[in-house]
Amino acid sequence: LSEKHRFYAYNSSVHKFVRNLITEWRRLDLPFAGETIVVAVSGGADSLSLLLAVSDLQIRKKLDLRIVAAHFNHKLRGRESDADEEFVKQVVSERKLEFALGHGPIEQAGNLEQNARDARYAFLAEIAANLRAGYVLTAHTMNDQAETFLLNLIRGSGFDGLSGMRPVRDLGSGGVQEVGMGHDSSTPLLLHSPTLLARPLLRWAKREDTENFCHESGVEFRYDTMNEDMSFKRVRVRQMLLPILKEFNPNIVETLANTADLMQQRSEPRVRGQEAGGQSTAVPDEPLIRDLKVLEPAILQETLRSWLKSRRGTLRSIGLKHIEAIERLILSTKSGRIVELPGFGRVRRHDGRLRFENIKVD
Amino acid sequence: LSEKHRFYAYNSSVHKFVRNLITEWRRLDLPFAGETIVVAVSGGADSLSLLLAVSDLQIRKKLDLRIVAAHFNHKLRGRESDADEEFVKQVVSERKLEFALGHGPIEQAGNLEQNARDARYAFLAEIAANLRAGYVLTAHTMNDQAETFLLNLIRGSGFDGLSGMRPVRDLGSGGVQEVGMGHDSSTPLLLHSPTLLARPLLRWAKREDTENFCHESGVEFRYDTMNEDMSFKRVRVRQMLLPILKEFNPNIVETLANTADLMQQRSEPRVRGQEAGGQSTAVPDEPLIRDLKVLEPAILQETLRSWLKSRRGTLRSIGLKHIEAIERLILSTKSGRIVELPGFGRVRRHDGRLRFENIKVD
Repeated sequence: LSEKHRFYAYNSSVHKFVRNLITEWRRLDLPFAGETIVVAVSGGADSLSLLLAVSDLQIRKKLDLRIVAAHFNHKLRGRESDADEEFVKQVVSERKLEFALGHGPIEQAGNLEQNARDARYAFLAEIAANLRAGYVLTAHTMNDQAETFLLNLIRGSGFDGLSGMRPVRDLGSGGVQEVGMGHDSSTPLLLHSPTLLARPLLRWAKREDTENFCHESGVEFRYDTMNEDMSFKRVRVRQMLLPILKEFNPNIVETLANTADLMQQRSEPRVRGQEAGGQSTAVPDEPLIRDLKVLEPAILQETLRSWLKSRRGTLRSIGLKHIEAIERLILSTKSGRIVELPGFGRVRRHDGRLRFENIKVD
Repeated sequence: LSEKHRFYAYNSSVHKFVRNLITEWRRLDLPFAGETIVVAVSGGADSLSLLLAVSDLQIRKKLDLRIVAAHFNHKLRGRESDADEEFVKQVVSERKLEFALGHGPIEQAGNLEQNARDARYAFLAEIAANLRAGYVLTAHTMNDQAETFLLNLIRGSGFDGLSGMRPVRDLGSGGVQEVGMGHDSSTPLLLHSPTLLARPLLRWAKREDTENFCHESGVEFRYDTMNEDMSFKRVRVRQMLLPILKEFNPNIVETLANTADLMQQRSEPRVRGQEAGGQSTAVPDEPLIRDLKVLEPAILQETLRSWLKSRRGTLRSIGLKHIEAIERLILSTKSGRIVELPGFGRVRRHDGRLRFENIKVD
């Protein structure tokens, strides 16, 4: 064997990382054979370790799937971005897997980080739809979960936010496929066959585990210099907040990820329904102020979040202060008042009701 | 009026602090007349502001209660402790309120902070029982709630811990009064007439509000030097962790206190029942391992916490790592294994069941 191929996969024993992955695979009820899965690969340790482990399971005949590695080149870091692409391409071809490539440029106006994520997920959804893949796999770890939990906690995002990321969720619009025409030929008949987003590392893998597995597989992973950019709140949480928390509890990452998991178990079925379908909420499109006024404060806040999510499509950028501003709108005696929301949209008090207005300015 | 009496209470307008207190008083359904309440007063800004505001409401005839200010001298700081006592006595006598005094010394072995709290609460419960007071009031603020939330989050205390302190709860054994003998003369008939612990500042007052109200009332409050002692985890949370969190969100104290409140609204009735009675859990005294094994991980953890609380009496010092150790006990194939718990008690796997053993060593 060449140096390049002396990664552990050809050894006889199954690496602990791979054993943990297959255990979680069963728990999440992911497919073992006869289906197509898309694995999102940036080239960093997390996504690379997932790809290597999935590939190993395929080689060992534990899996019999069509595996497509999907890389999105954001074109945000010039040569560095292109080098990432080349690197992923090479690893994928060495493992004899299929490769799908998407690329930027990314919309520069607004929140760049968010625009990049939107473009990446749109690409993954499109690839999955084209391939009729049932699953897109991303390599989020317990560290990502802990950071998400803290970001949501700091923002005051309420119960759903503290539930963090779910190990399996609907990928969204990418799963809606046009399959034919209905009786009224002006209305296409849409069959909702959702592609699911699965995060099989989320509940057990830490960043050091993915790095170790790459090392022990003999593969050098790529570093994303944006992970060091302190202008990103997530980076500040990782570099400033988590080290302080670690002084109190050395296992803080597991503790926070576990807490998010606990919240998920406690969240009511309607929350899951909302996340998957977005429409199962009982709050009317334009709720009556007088119905809202009688709610307990914490219940009111959750109701407002739920309503806003269903009307606005997302709670992105919405923090406690915005929910509280809407509360003041409800409790105020003046009519015709407005709360402007960050990013896009606003809430108007009108005719005894709350109304969401989307006045997206490009 | 002498300088001493030019505090705002004799002015015509009601201070915002007092208005907020009476609003919360109604919300918590606290008594307005014909009852006795005990107000715990250390001499710090929080408890002093509560006493001053309650006294103001009495002067304004909004309240018509027997008000007893209760001070516990821990005798932990020598002359400083005695000066606190003298100071509280003077404020109380100026307001023509009744005064109850308890004092140490506190048991030095073990957790001093915890021993002091236990002695203080035992004193408050005893005073309340003697006076047949329905309520003991303590002056915990949103800051205390935020700190408690963070301490519990860091420890990995599960759902109940993240609910933080409740604005009203049973004070405990102090409310059980022996009122006569039953048919079997060897068994005293106990009437459970609980004294409630109420925290009427918890949901709206911040530390700066209590300090401002004292200043504006013309009363100098006392500082407890133990609040600066970084050997206490709570002090480190206040001095090290919260300032970092404030860089992310200037309103972090409100946000965290609000989150705890949200958790309380979400917690199931059984949790409240457990807190009040301690016995309403459905988990058997010695649960079968095989019944526990089938539970979802997060549900198992909550079940174990609930069981441990009912058997051990308290979850004090119990963190995620201890619950996880018990989980490993359940999942292990070896029998006769033991998990030692911090402070006191241990859990044994025996005969297919979990058993709690209390082997308190003095």
